Amino acid sequence: MKISVSSLGGAGEIGMNMYIYETDRYAVIVDCGVKFTKSDEIGVDLIIPDFSYIETIKHKKIMLIITHAHEDHIGAVPYLIKEYPDIAVVCGRYSWDIINKKLNEHDISVSQIYIDDFKPFEWGDFEITAYPVSHSIHGTYAVLLKIAEEFKAVHISDYKIDYSPVTCTPFPLKEFIELGKDSVDLLMADSTNIIKSGFTKGEHQVIKGIDEVFKQAFGRIFFTTFASNTERLQTVFNTAEKYGRKVALEGSSLIKHIDTAKKHGKLSFNDDILISRKQIEKLDDNKICFIATGSQGEGASVITKVAENDYSDIKVRKGDTFVFSSRIIPGNEHRIIYIMNNVYEKGGSVITTDDLPIHVSGHAAKEDALLLLNILKPKYLVPIHGEVQHLAKHKQLAVKYGMLDKKVIFFLAGNKIIFENGRFIEKQDITAGKRYVDLNTEEFLTPDELKNRKKLAINGAVVVVNSAENVENINENNIIIQLIGFSIEKEYINILKQSIIEYSQKETGGIHQKENFNEFTEQTVKRFFKKRFNKRPHINIINIHNGAL
Amino acid sequence: MKISVSSLGGAGEIGMNMYIYETDRYAVIVDCGVKFTKSDEIGVDLIIPDFSYIETIKHKKIMLIITHAHEDHIGAVPYLIKEYPDIAVVCGRYSWDIINKKLNEHDISVSQIYIDDFKPFEWGDFEITAYPVSHSIHGTYAVLLKIAEEFKAVHISDYKIDYSPVTCTPFPLKEFIELGKDSVDLLMADSTNIIKSGFTKGEHQVIKGIDEVFKQAFGRIFFTTFASNTERLQTVFNTAEKYGRKVALEGSSLIKHIDTAKKHGKLSFNDDILISRKQIEKLDDNKICFIATGSQGEGASVITKVAENDYSDIKVRKGDTFVFSSRIIPGNEHRIIYIMNNVYEKGGSVITTDDLPIHVSGHAAKEDALLLLNILKPKYLVPIHGEVQHLAKHKQLAVKYGMLDKKVIFFLAGNKIIFENGRFIEKQDITAGKRYVDLNTEEFLTPDELKNRKKLAINGAVVVVNSAENVENINENNIIIQLIGFSIEKEYINILKQSIIEYSQKETGGIHQKENFNEFTEQTVKRFFKKRFNKRPHINIINIHNGAL
Repeated sequence: MKISVSSLGGAGEIGMNMYIYETDRYAVIVDCGVKFTKSDEIGVDLIIPDFSYIETIKHKKIMLIITHAHEDHIGAVPYLIKEYPDIAVVCGRYSWDIINKKLNEHDISVSQIYIDDFKPFEWGDFEITAYPVSHSIHGTYAVLLKIAEEFKAVHISDYKIDYSPVTCTPFPLKEFIELGKDSVDLLMADSTNIIKSGFTKGEHQVIKGIDEVFKQAFGRIFFTTFASNTERLQTVFNTAEKYGRKVALEGSSLIKHIDTAKKHGKLSFNDDILISRKQIEKLDDNKICFIATGSQGEGASVITKVAENDYSDIKVRKGDTFVFSSRIIPGNEHRIIYIMNNVYEKGGSVITTDDLPIHVSGHAAKEDALLLLNILKPKYLVPIHGEVQHLAKHKQLAVKYGMLDKKVIFFLAGNKIIFENGRFIEKQDITAGKRYVDLNTEEFLTPDELKNRKKLAINGAVVVVNSAENVENINENNIIIQLIGFSIEKEYINILKQSIIEYSQKETGGIHQKENFNEFTEQTVKRFFKKRFNKRPHINIINIHNGAL
Repeated sequence: MKISVSSLGGAGEIGMNMYIYETDRYAVIVDCGVKFTKSDEIGVDLIIPDFSYIETIKHKKIMLIITHAHEDHIGAVPYLIKEYPDIAVVCGRYSWDIINKKLNEHDISVSQIYIDDFKPFEWGDFEITAYPVSHSIHGTYAVLLKIAEEFKAVHISDYKIDYSPVTCTPFPLKEFIELGKDSVDLLMADSTNIIKSGFTKGEHQVIKGIDEVFKQAFGRIFFTTFASNTERLQTVFNTAEKYGRKVALEGSSLIKHIDTAKKHGKLSFNDDILISRKQIEKLDDNKICFIATGSQGEGASVITKVAENDYSDIKVRKGDTFVFSSRIIPGNEHRIIYIMNNVYEKGGSVITTDDLPIHVSGHAAKEDALLLLNILKPKYLVPIHGEVQHLAKHKQLAVKYGMLDKKVIFFLAGNKIIFENGRFIEKQDITAGKRYVDLNTEEFLTPDELKNRKKLAINGAVVVVNSAENVENINENNIIIQLIGFSIEKEYINILKQSIIEYSQKETGGIHQKENFNEFTEQTVKRFFKKRFNKRPHINIINIHNGAL
């Protein structure tokens, strides 16, 4: 039987993970994530995959399995289900609580099925087993897919090998060793952190650094990390307790994740350590710890607003310590520098991983990846989840340590790889791409539309209104020119107007039609701005007679 | 006498350095730089200081002294001289060669005066001495300003303490020790790299790393660094020679800097190592080294174009090694990741400072700064050249090592500090700000205008054309609505049109005037888009009768 694996996102980029395993009649989608926009992708909030490819396989029975509830793995689920409501969602209980809240916000219901640790689950040609793994959110799984009893794939997106986590699952080394004894055909594995040497450090290694933060701080602490990393928060709660500080929680996504973790017994603290924003202000500064959203300096986050003195009546004051227990996702540097500048200007200070060891990654480094390869000994390796450079370096690493070059498949979003009788036979291209979501208008924009928006900002627009009844009558009184988004001196407007009028009179023989007027006016305006201002404005021509719109 | 020091840029930001020392009748401007735009500052290329403050002191005799020829210290000189052609430019011979080329491009001439190492130079109330210091471009100076025989300021923007540079000036420790023996009132000093511990590494420390690059590379090498860092290039030429590689130079700014360095005897290589792009293609790949511009991933740079396979007939091929001998300036991460992805996708690989020690900073770290403080023992310290966080950390450092808090002055662009009888008496605010330069149109934009551009991109524009002769006659046939930059369904356009018509008929009693029509139409359109689409488009109303423009 032919078995294929495709990617609609996540291979060749960080974020937007979406992979599809298929037989003739069944398809299993693994993850359906979003990617966050960069600062020059203006006016849009999220990027979701182009789902066109799903249309071509919709005759198959399709399910979606979720490895874990990070946004780059679940963020696009509501959009997928809106378009394909029959797709069943399979996931663990922890992830489901988070996904379900998201679906409720979109007013969507799905048919949902739980998976349990290590318990095989049948889906037509597929038998799926979820292996709990260590990462930076509870309920993270690697997935074993036995396909048509002839092909065994292990899909492990986002993991690290941590034997001594604080509250998360230790990596199930024994079960992976068992798994490796029976031959694995294909390993699809995380490449995000592959450029780092050694093993990724265990979560317990931040305990000392966070303790040091609390020991040094003489004023209030504002602590921020990824909202979903409630394991990190366990350490913060423990340390706050140790140093006699009360904790106030700020930011809805943070509170959502803390609720979920508490409900699942993955986070525990004395309820009387929590205190409201109002009450906390009555305490001495050295008894206060805020935990707040904003580790990436997001514009609307609590930390940004506090730094701007724009968050309720909480203002930055002398002695405040802002703690970033997180890495900076590339592209967010300026936002975080902005916060730092604001905090320092107001007398506070900032602690990052440059100052103290207060963050560890949730992703496998070189040694984690090598250990996994050695345990599983897959026939084929496909590096996933990373920029092209990460995939390439993951491949380099595997080849350096003994895999044949042709057994490590370089695979990007928009690729489909096909296996027959357990052997890789072909790589094909499928439709894949990005859609930019404007959460205000719920518009989807293509990359071209986004580019046009940017062009409008750079070049502005020129509106020409022609109210002459026919082209012969065009004169100064019935042509209006307006500029949007930029200005030039009035005399230039008059010169342009004259050119349009002259041209229309000269060409009058051939241009009785509105179309001709539009065409030559557009050309005239275009040339004028190109030549004099090296500018390419958007041009809009409105004819009163002959009605537009 | 009152002596003041002001900043129009560079204090509280990286880039755009511009400081002014004044007595009643004389002013010395130190540096006049640009800042580069971030990726969300679209359609603009450079940021220059707002010079309004100069207008208020133009009755004084003003000179401009240049510490070194990096863009963030000289980039705005042509704009300053265009507005104030009487300002004399004082600088070293090396810097002058670079500034002069820039002025020629702008078709500007100035009255120019050379300074020589350690030779005092008189300017009214000022006696100025230039101390050559180590940095990452030749001809870098610290400046001693003796003012009105009563005040001694040392201005040292951009330096590191390097005793064993490759071709640059070793730090003149002896002369600084002499200087420190006589009391220094004020030290204005670089803070860019103050968050780093220890001393900044010397330039010779990259030799081994670059050697390793050449030893490992089996295909072509594409080497990039800051074009002005010809000291780094000396090492590249030496290493290319050692490994028998020929060198091709690509990028005009690179060639300009290499010419200047050669002319001043600061760069030497055998001319027959140079080879043209055409000739080089006849050599074996392991005999080729390109040196090219683009270490920050600039869109139009050679490295970016090569990575895109869009640079002449040079295409990336298997085995190529791209070497980034530079740090990533925050905000440019995405551009460099883009290059890396392109290179790896085409079979090449990339080496950065994460892989080998191939870059050292040109800026003082903590120990450099402390050594300087200990040698000069200034009465006052003003940290300059850095984000707010850097200035704050420079202050923390000085206070921790013994300076009184009130003797370290926190000072930002837009501040003026005043000294009398050698004592700091007051901090005032002056006009300062940013102007965004669009190099295509040579427009200057204010931050607000830039914000409006962005709003136009996000929200688009709505044009309403009213061709009714008076408001009572408004009906479907004389209102045209056009959208620019976005679209909505036609039925919504009709709903909006009807609202405008209905409203105009209802209100007809009070709104005979064009102004009233404009006002209520704007309100109607605004409410409509806010309510239905949560959008705030730019609104343009054109009345045919009653002629606009």
